[in-house]
Amino acid sequence: ADEFDFTEHVHRRWNPLTESWVLCSPHRAKRPWLGQQENQATEEMPEHVSDCYLCPRNVRAGGKIVNPDYKTTFVFDNDFPAVLPSQPTYKPAVSADPETAALASELLQARGVRGACKVMCFTPQHNRTMAEMDTDAILPVIEEWTRQYLELGALEYVNYVQIFENKGAVMGCSNPHPHGQIWSMSDIPDEPTKEIRALTNHRAKHNTCLLCDYAKVELTDRTRLVVENASFLAVVPFWATWPFETLILSKRHVAALPDLDAAQKSDLADIMRRVTCKYDNLFETSFPYSMGIHGAPTDGKDHGGDCCLHLHFYPPLLRSATVKKFLVGFEMMGESQRDLTSEQAAARLRALPEVHYKTKTQ
Amino acid sequence: ADEFDFTEHVHRRWNPLTESWVLCSPHRAKRPWLGQQENQATEEMPEHVSDCYLCPRNVRAGGKIVNPDYKTTFVFDNDFPAVLPSQPTYKPAVSADPETAALASELLQARGVRGACKVMCFTPQHNRTMAEMDTDAILPVIEEWTRQYLELGALEYVNYVQIFENKGAVMGCSNPHPHGQIWSMSDIPDEPTKEIRALTNHRAKHNTCLLCDYAKVELTDRTRLVVENASFLAVVPFWATWPFETLILSKRHVAALPDLDAAQKSDLADIMRRVTCKYDNLFETSFPYSMGIHGAPTDGKDHGGDCCLHLHFYPPLLRSATVKKFLVGFEMMGESQRDLTSEQAAARLRALPEVHYKTKTQ
Ligand SMILES: O=P(O)(O)O[C@H]1O[C@H](CO)[C@@H](O)[C@H](O)[C@H]1O
Ligand SMILES: O=P(O)(O)O[C@H]1O[C@H](CO)[C@@H](O)[C@H](O)[C@H]1O
Repeated sequence: ADEFDFTEHVHRRWNPLTESWVLCSPHRAKRPWLGQQENQATEEMPEHVSDCYLCPRNVRAGGKIVNPDYKTTFVFDNDFPAVLPSQPTYKPAVSADPETAALASELLQARGVRGACKVMCFTPQHNRTMAEMDTDAILPVIEEWTRQYLELGALEYVNYVQIFENKGAVMGCSNPHPHGQIWSMSDIPDEPTKEIRALTNHRAKHNTCLLCDYAKVELTDRTRLVVENASFLAVVPFWATWPFETLILSKRHVAALPDLDAAQKSDLADIMRRVTCKYDNLFETSFPYSMGIHGAPTDGKDHGGDCCLHLHFYPPLLRSATVKKFLVGFEMMGESQRDLTSEQAAARLRALPEVHYKTKTQ
Repeated sequence: ADEFDFTEHVHRRWNPLTESWVLCSPHRAKRPWLGQQENQATEEMPEHVSDCYLCPRNVRAGGKIVNPDYKTTFVFDNDFPAVLPSQPTYKPAVSADPETAALASELLQARGVRGACKVMCFTPQHNRTMAEMDTDAILPVIEEWTRQYLELGALEYVNYVQIFENKGAVMGCSNPHPHGQIWSMSDIPDEPTKEIRALTNHRAKHNTCLLCDYAKVELTDRTRLVVENASFLAVVPFWATWPFETLILSKRHVAALPDLDAAQKSDLADIMRRVTCKYDNLFETSFPYSMGIHGAPTDGKDHGGDCCLHLHFYPPLLRSATVKKFLVGFEMMGESQRDLTSEQAAARLRALPEVHYKTKTQ
């Protein structure tokens, strides 16, 4: 009775990838929820929507360009890019006040950033998401991501390519047409920087890859395993922040998308379909999330040892299709906090069918 | 024409407090918004609401306890605490598999955590917020925070006290009755840990306080200053993540709330009223935010040099009462990103009146 139990007792877990802690309060899932409810998109959508600026043959936001009659994926320049290919070089201004000039140069540090932003439609079908796409239809998405990674990565002013998807209105996505984004830039952003640091430190200590070692532990333990195939596994990481967060890991060390062979690419399509399908089945809703691919920077250095391809899924829903987890107050000022254990989340996801709930009920 | 301009060109800014970067894309504020709109609470509320579990004399959530007829502040134990005063001691389980046991003990690290969670009503009046309270009514809130910090901090199992407020449904707050929370725990959470590290490093280098130095720079530069009085200043920090984020700094070095004298406490009440009132006036709405107070841990060590009392306000709204900034996809996978400069945000807040818009129109 007096044994410490992860499903009963409060604990912190260490995230060795970002070197941060998460507070886990498993008993807290029992509290009633009186707060905000999200809207649930229930409306059935057609395959083509005439005023969708991402559907084939339609006019894009801005009113000037017409989309081609694309059949698989379609990539175009973001009409409102966060980073731009060219701009003046940044030179720090010297503070007017000699007394605070030295302090200002240390405390008000900035850098200029260049880059390019792309939008990528996953399929011409407006009413599909990865959860409802066939593995065969997801494969071209992975091929296109690989091409974009290489093409953008080859640009003189690009040292890092971030592929991601915001899915669902609650994740700031303004159009349900299945699409993701690719932001590429001259600097390596903060999150991959932290991960590279952790992987580098781990290799210095063990001469092995942190994420490959972690995959080994999870394949042995199996309590956090959601799904696996010949090349990949998906787990709710031990240190998950979001309630149903998952991490897709490769079983063989690969630094970035171009290092995948044909079989691995198919297996990645397979595991992405199965994970997103389980997500939709969890609350029988189109499950919102942000997904991102982390791989090696494209800065021309050898990152074979300090980078290991992986995908993060950060979904906000906690209790139902309309109740999400708020990472606010304590989480912003103190540290991340979660209300169920990773093992509980993994068990629930594992138990779900891999056939989409909409197909079943037809 | 070819000069680098913070209001035109993309740059990253360094946050010396958390040692992280934020990407600033000032031109991006021009893009149209087609995404999710938040609900705006416009309903006029009475001073006392019979089914509010925080109003005086009412029955609390759970149905057993009746609130006293309190006149200023009122503190009680959180009915659904994230941390608890007692539980078994955590002992790491030894992995069953000898091959992965060593890796597992390194990659699956956890710690037990104890603590206590309190809820604090700021005033009996259901329809007030700090923005509409008199400075005289905010003072008892600051006195009570100070008492709680001392009382909780004195507990054997508490080494850190985090005071915070989640305001507004969009920040996960389930009851508009003005209230905040206090979570105290045996470990120092991640965010203050990072700050203490940065302040310690700065002192090692300069023998001065990072935040006091920063306050000096901002009082000289003045472009990010929102408001000041004899004891405090509020700025949109150079490295702000949230669109209208502010940081309240003390003009004299103080480690924690109990170090404030009577005049400083009044001045803190004054600046909190003025900042929150400007916030409400920005979009003529009850402005949502998470607010938190960072000060010294209560672990019995001398933190006079490595801690400096300050308050963070993290408000999500970007364009209007119903359009917030989504920190999703790129922000989660890459790094924080903002769409207007800190100087632009500060200028807008500075220009706003310090009389609440609801009073003006009466
Ligand atoms: O305790 P509350 O107000 O019910 O809950 C709110 O604040 C907590 C502390 O920031 C968060 O963990 C919850 O996700 C949020 O909904
Ligand atoms: O580019 P979008 O989809 O319009 O915008 C969305 O994703 C971006 C990248 O994660 C975020 O910066 C925006 O806040 C979000 O609304």
